[in-house]
Amino acid sequence: MPRSPMLGEFDLIERFFARSRTAAGAGVILGVGDDAALLDLPAGTHLAAAVDTLVCGRHFPGDMPAHAIGYRALAVNLSDLAAMGATPAWATLALTLPHAEEAWLEPFARGFYELADTCGVTLVGGDTTAGPLTVSVQILGYVARGTALRRSGARPGDCVVVTGTLGDAAAGLAVAQGRLPPSAAAQVLRRRFEYPEPRVAFGQAARGIASAAMDLSDGLGGDLAKLTAASMVGAQVAVDRLPLSAALRTLGDEAQRRRWALCGGDDYELLLTVPPQQLDRLRDAAHATGTTLTVVGEIRAQPGVLWTLNGAPYAEPAGGYDHFGGPSTEVTV
Amino acid sequence: MPRSPMLGEFDLIERFFARSRTAAGAGVILGVGDDAALLDLPAGTHLAAAVDTLVCGRHFPGDMPAHAIGYRALAVNLSDLAAMGATPAWATLALTLPHAEEAWLEPFARGFYELADTCGVTLVGGDTTAGPLTVSVQILGYVARGTALRRSGARPGDCVVVTGTLGDAAAGLAVAQGRLPPSAAAQVLRRRFEYPEPRVAFGQAARGIASAAMDLSDGLGGDLAKLTAASMVGAQVAVDRLPLSAALRTLGDEAQRRRWALCGGDDYELLLTVPPQQLDRLRDAAHATGTTLTVVGEIRAQPGVLWTLNGAPYAEPAGGYDHFGGPSTEVTV
Repeated sequence: MPRSPMLGEFDLIERFFARSRTAAGAGVILGVGDDAALLDLPAGTHLAAAVDTLVCGRHFPGDMPAHAIGYRALAVNLSDLAAMGATPAWATLALTLPHAEEAWLEPFARGFYELADTCGVTLVGGDTTAGPLTVSVQILGYVARGTALRRSGARPGDCVVVTGTLGDAAAGLAVAQGRLPPSAAAQVLRRRFEYPEPRVAFGQAARGIASAAMDLSDGLGGDLAKLTAASMVGAQVAVDRLPLSAALRTLGDEAQRRRWALCGGDDYELLLTVPPQQLDRLRDAAHATGTTLTVVGEIRAQPGVLWTLNGAPYAEPAGGYDHFGGPSTEVTV
Repeated sequence: MPRSPMLGEFDLIERFFARSRTAAGAGVILGVGDDAALLDLPAGTHLAAAVDTLVCGRHFPGDMPAHAIGYRALAVNLSDLAAMGATPAWATLALTLPHAEEAWLEPFARGFYELADTCGVTLVGGDTTAGPLTVSVQILGYVARGTALRRSGARPGDCVVVTGTLGDAAAGLAVAQGRLPPSAAAQVLRRRFEYPEPRVAFGQAARGIASAAMDLSDGLGGDLAKLTAASMVGAQVAVDRLPLSAALRTLGDEAQRRRWALCGGDDYELLLTVPPQQLDRLRDAAHATGTTLTVVGEIRAQPGVLWTLNGAPYAEPAGGYDHFGGPSTEVTV
């Protein structure tokens, strides 16, 4: 591997993540630059920790702009904290990349910091290594003791609700890969894939109201099965009630749109359950945080998920995004 | 990529990391299986967080046993907490691997848990993705407020000390790559590369005694330069006093051994500074935790590191391990 045109690793970290050395983020006792970061958790809280990795060619196409990769790597992690109702605070970044190129690193760091600044996240540690492009972010945050939203709290009779619209990211990936023709709507969807909006504020607002929550990273089909299993319940969902964006409605046929919405993955919306008598409060929380909310079904005692289409049973398409098994949105480059 | 002989991702995580779903580790409110882990930090402590990634072909040879990879991925992270004097508690694992093979995953998980159990670490989150073999661990722990060891505390007149022996891992890598002939000593050194022993107990014992600390991951040459820069001091080090193991003394020539010890990297010993009047207390802490300690030099006010060999100035070999720049122990496969 030719070395001369590359920057050294330490130069790199210095140059593009330099601000993290001096950033005085909330609760940061010691940030980037020592063996470990030292962080101060607010009194009365639990630490919330999650990790998500993006692999080039698997989670995003090889030609995705570096700015979007940096943004998205943090967004998918923030989505995990949103699903717990936690407040994000700090992140570490493990970045593996084939070549240390300024033209890639500068927009990558910019995309990462753009979302970090919006959400009050300080980068407190990192590790840059040479190898195939892989971005692993660990997000750290906190939540008042006993208030976190879990997957296990759904009870029979609860409403099943989702935020935002479903299927956009899967269609947006098809756009990014050239499988759908360019159009104004296609650009909107592509942006939904590249720049997911984690529902951080709404997740926090839903604490004490929703009975269970998780984020929709693998598609409603597979994710609802996980939530109901964790809660030891089942559910009935009306596929015709799934919220689809105006942009998505312009593309594909109805069956294709349903598959995107159910199995597409990568939407990073929230899936929640809420007792019916709390639904209005949840709607208020959604309104206050600029989030749309759609009731798509109901929790039942009987295990398993019953999908219906206009009142009739609907055969669930292959569910869930499985990086080894058979992802419907698998990226191949 | 052929899929049929593979396990699904979720099956995999279930099978080999299943115990993490039920493990009741200290402070684990909610472990693997939700969107994020919830963790309870002991009162009066700061959170310590670090991340380190191992890339196949860069940080270890492609034929390194999976058991050693699992062990080592955690060990290099524990070493970061050891250098802070922190108590390790929890870890998350981002595992990218080309094929989901039981024959690889079983020993990998066993190696990881072997060290985790020894050090009281609970795996609280993970992410498994398909791609080139990359193992990223984030370690979380805690340290009583105001007691963490930092890189920035070295003062002129402090002794420069190192734990254990230096250069073994670099020679051990040469053994693993077939660049050194097999022998009993070679096997000892290979094990030092594959199974580093993080100085966790000693690091904790050194709090309140050492003035500064960091772990030796990149070789004393580069790492001492970082510590002195962080402390805004310089140092003088006698290369002839570097501790070499009996096994290392049987291999190579004297100049080669010196290069391994100074620039080899991967030893995961600790580099500390300590006021002379505290040296005996630090020796006691080392003795109590089964660690050997060697004074190799002294901190000076004048910036830069002056290396000497038997009293005469010694030209520092190319310093430090730089994954992009020019690592002396770079693995190519």
